[in-house]
Amino acid sequence: MNTINLKQLAKELGLAVSTVSRALHDSHEISQETKDRVQALANKLGFQPNPHASSLRKNKSKTIAVIVPEIENNFFSQAINGVELVAKQKGYHVLIYLTHEDFCQEQAILRLLRNGRVDGLMISVSNTTTSFDHLETCRKAGLPVVLFDRVADEIDVPKITTDDAEVSFKATEHLIKKGCKKIAFLSMSGDLSISKRRHSGYKKAIEKFLPEDWQQVIECSPDDEQNRRLIHDLLKPDNAPDGIFATVEKFAVNTYQVCYELGIPIPGKIKVVSFSNLSAAALFHPPLTTIVQPAYDIGREAATILFKLIENKKLLHLEQRVILPSQLIPRRSSTGTARN
Amino acid sequence: MNTINLKQLAKELGLAVSTVSRALHDSHEISQETKDRVQALANKLGFQPNPHASSLRKNKSKTIAVIVPEIENNFFSQAINGVELVAKQKGYHVLIYLTHEDFCQEQAILRLLRNGRVDGLMISVSNTTTSFDHLETCRKAGLPVVLFDRVADEIDVPKITTDDAEVSFKATEHLIKKGCKKIAFLSMSGDLSISKRRHSGYKKAIEKFLPEDWQQVIECSPDDEQNRRLIHDLLKPDNAPDGIFATVEKFAVNTYQVCYELGIPIPGKIKVVSFSNLSAAALFHPPLTTIVQPAYDIGREAATILFKLIENKKLLHLEQRVILPSQLIPRRSSTGTARN
Repeated sequence: MNTINLKQLAKELGLAVSTVSRALHDSHEISQETKDRVQALANKLGFQPNPHASSLRKNKSKTIAVIVPEIENNFFSQAINGVELVAKQKGYHVLIYLTHEDFCQEQAILRLLRNGRVDGLMISVSNTTTSFDHLETCRKAGLPVVLFDRVADEIDVPKITTDDAEVSFKATEHLIKKGCKKIAFLSMSGDLSISKRRHSGYKKAIEKFLPEDWQQVIECSPDDEQNRRLIHDLLKPDNAPDGIFATVEKFAVNTYQVCYELGIPIPGKIKVVSFSNLSAAALFHPPLTTIVQPAYDIGREAATILFKLIENKKLLHLEQRVILPSQLIPRRSSTGTARN
Repeated sequence: MNTINLKQLAKELGLAVSTVSRALHDSHEISQETKDRVQALANKLGFQPNPHASSLRKNKSKTIAVIVPEIENNFFSQAINGVELVAKQKGYHVLIYLTHEDFCQEQAILRLLRNGRVDGLMISVSNTTTSFDHLETCRKAGLPVVLFDRVADEIDVPKITTDDAEVSFKATEHLIKKGCKKIAFLSMSGDLSISKRRHSGYKKAIEKFLPEDWQQVIECSPDDEQNRRLIHDLLKPDNAPDGIFATVEKFAVNTYQVCYELGIPIPGKIKVVSFSNLSAAALFHPPLTTIVQPAYDIGREAATILFKLIENKKLLHLEQRVILPSQLIPRRSSTGTARN
């Protein structure tokens, strides 16, 4: 690339390279007049310090990484917007990595990031992640790590989540109050602590309010086709549920698709609630009752804490485990009664 | 950070730092036996070369940047997935930057990227971008640049888009065939070439098929509230349109919201088509007729061409201007007739 370097600046100004470098770093050894001359020419020619030389010298990359399962999901894209805001204020770059729900991919990304490419990282683990050694290795190496949303309780780093158990209890209770007696729970992965928390809220509400204690957990996957087959089987007339609690937006979309196909009316025959940050959920046929997570705030909070770690600031006790409340927004998929 | 460096490796092995370095770079000056010893210890201790030192030496950052207006839009998130696939195959990192439709922000990002932080960049310009000097400066500095989707005809770099004019003609023709006589066009920005191409398709179809030649262009913005006000005014009974062509998914969402509010039935009183890559568009009430862009393929194609530029390979004439076809998917928002 054809860029301006220190040497060219020095030549043009008739100064030593070291003088130009010190002038640009505002060294007290250099007169203000020289600093002004150097800065003026640097601005004119569009000089930018080489970021790799600068990173090597300062041992700072001025970059953080955000590792998420996917971005075709409004929760993660809104969270990234929150991270971005904080990073911009700090003059940092954001590297975004997608694991596509693949544990091996997640391990490979963390291996790449270990040696100084980033000053810190934020991660929401994939739903196929079964051990957390790759995170522990980073933490032990002194790389600041913050977990958000899909966290691992096993690792001693700050964690930012929503009140998954409480809001799941509330959503299940809502379905029960609307008349559901057999509520199926569409889960993303039994291994993740977020799944366990959401499941515990569901379980607790059923045990508290439903004497028959009908529970059914369906393990869904990132594969739409497979999910639709599972839901199709679930809805067979024999012992079909009258309520669906989808823990991931796409499972609700899969449920709607199967109900359309089978002609099962929502909410007439089956009521649906789902975790979802999709603004268009209100336009669904019927409008979808959603649990909306404060995605933007989660991203902003996680980034704020990460920068505290990067800057070696002491964290408050509260910042080790931040829990932000989600919101249940009832719509016709669970509140209506008439046939659609 | 507490990482293993060359010096520690050398000490442990009783070798000179330069020998260890050359062994790791597979130099012919070093015996296979020594190489094996060095590699074995490097693996054992989890040694990773410092990326900044490596970048400085090779003058390669092994990183590309993707600059997009937003990621809360399935088109861009799917395009990024396509870019990611190619970058992964090449062993490259992907830096994702969001302009949030802000021209100043876009200029600032390009300034940051000019001096070696990335080996190349791909950009879809913001809808407030009014000049392209910031892109021209990068191109002139020898930084490989590829434009995709929202491109600038003014800049001589490869461009990857869809057949915006043709598919817009087709979508307008579709509305006309379904009985619309007054079709309003919800545009994102008059300045972008993509807006001009989409508008030209709309205009051409109206002029060809509608004797009364009723045309109306509404300039929408990233602000939902403002768009809803504009659409609210547009739908006042006097001279309201009977068809809406939304050039951005969110404008269709805004249209649905206003129609719900005013009790205007879609498609009974007004028919709607929209550019959109949202899989849930089929679940809308009524299901939304969409123009689906091959977002993933656009990302993949743009990245493939960018790597050709980075690797100094000659581009085929066809690769300077790639146009991939979009698909019109008719659904009830434009095909139905009964009142909802």
